[in-house]
Amino acid sequence: MSEARILGVLGGMGPLAGATFMQRLTLLTPASRDQDHIPSILWSDPRVPDRTAARIAGGEDPLPWLMRGLRGLEAAGCGAIAIPCNTAHGWFEPMQEATRLPILHIVHAAADELLRLGLTGGTVGLMATKGTLAMRLYQPRLEARGFDCLVPTEEEMDRIVMPSIDLVKANRISESYAPLAEIARRLIARGAKAVVLGCTEIPLGIAAGPALPFPVADTIDALARASIAWAKPAA
Amino acid sequence: MSEARILGVLGGMGPLAGATFMQRLTLLTPASRDQDHIPSILWSDPRVPDRTAARIAGGEDPLPWLMRGLRGLEAAGCGAIAIPCNTAHGWFEPMQEATRLPILHIVHAAADELLRLGLTGGTVGLMATKGTLAMRLYQPRLEARGFDCLVPTEEEMDRIVMPSIDLVKANRISESYAPLAEIARRLIARGAKAVVLGCTEIPLGIAAGPALPFPVADTIDALARASIAWAKPAA
Repeated sequence: MSEARILGVLGGMGPLAGATFMQRLTLLTPASRDQDHIPSILWSDPRVPDRTAARIAGGEDPLPWLMRGLRGLEAAGCGAIAIPCNTAHGWFEPMQEATRLPILHIVHAAADELLRLGLTGGTVGLMATKGTLAMRLYQPRLEARGFDCLVPTEEEMDRIVMPSIDLVKANRISESYAPLAEIARRLIARGAKAVVLGCTEIPLGIAAGPALPFPVADTIDALARASIAWAKPAA
Repeated sequence: MSEARILGVLGGMGPLAGATFMQRLTLLTPASRDQDHIPSILWSDPRVPDRTAARIAGGEDPLPWLMRGLRGLEAAGCGAIAIPCNTAHGWFEPMQEATRLPILHIVHAAADELLRLGLTGGTVGLMATKGTLAMRLYQPRLEARGFDCLVPTEEEMDRIVMPSIDLVKANRISESYAPLAEIARRLIARGAKAVVLGCTEIPLGIAAGPALPFPVADTIDALARASIAWAKPAA
């Protein structure tokens, strides 16, 4: 059997984001037949306790569930791990310390995506969960790459962003477009040059309506591109 | 950790069909939050040798590759197997004999889908790979459920259907719509009351254009519904 790098995908957070990641991984891979595509295993366990609740409201710790998926992907022979859930990256360090497999960091992928969009620094809008904002997952990492982050107000987070993310998780995707697009537009109006969709549910909602007329860094696509670069370094 | 039925998905044949299966499984599941969705593991190995070539042209046997995926899904704790590739069902019996896990048969799911569409018998069009047609995967099973199968001509298979399937596998989805829709229309004109999309690449192409004005049994959705019925028998 031929040698190939097998990508492990720790998904299910939410499940539609994980499935869409697999679809984008496929569509962004240069291929002319099945056998040109990247072998990959998606561990989709939507039972992982809510990451934002764990971070800001004392909810159940997701780490044991994340570790179970990681061990399953190791056992299946994967050579690297991608996690299409931004908030789960709050547990990146304990996961990376517990495995010899490289974990591709979604924030580094997002920064690369901003570069690919032609931005080399300045202010960018950041849409993410309250958990991701509270743990400052993006701010120091993007600052190190020359970007300042502008985030929605607390009232916008509670009244618009978090309910819209919940709509996607409840399969009510099209309803989430208008409120998510409105927040993205407000961040641009306040001075952002681009908007980072720093929660993998948000690009699903944003894809359900007309394209936004400013640069948008989709973290599903960003992580898919980073995964392809790992799997096919020569391509 | 809570008890739940974990679905094993033997995918990658092609990879876009497997990823889209995961997406449809998610969207068709009644859910109001992540934790309501079905735990599932997608084994996406696009290196499995071409199933049609193995069946009709003496190509490499895919069974060892299929068995490797099956063993991986068993080891991961799955309770049943879904295979979103019709032609791979030509190896259904040796796979089912080799595992204690139930494998959900895609042709039974397709027959249930015809019933759901309101058809209780009569002539249906069958679009599938040359491998699936040559092994008569559908005909006896649908006949047992009261359906006769009308298939494209050999010239239509060689000149239109197989090249269109290859377009999907090469990520040229939108180009496959017109030729696939044309064959579906011809089968209806020849007397079929509905068309079974009996290759999981075909619904991907058919989804890339306007909806067809007659009943269509999509085997990705059919297998997703069968999987949900297995995972959530009470729902």
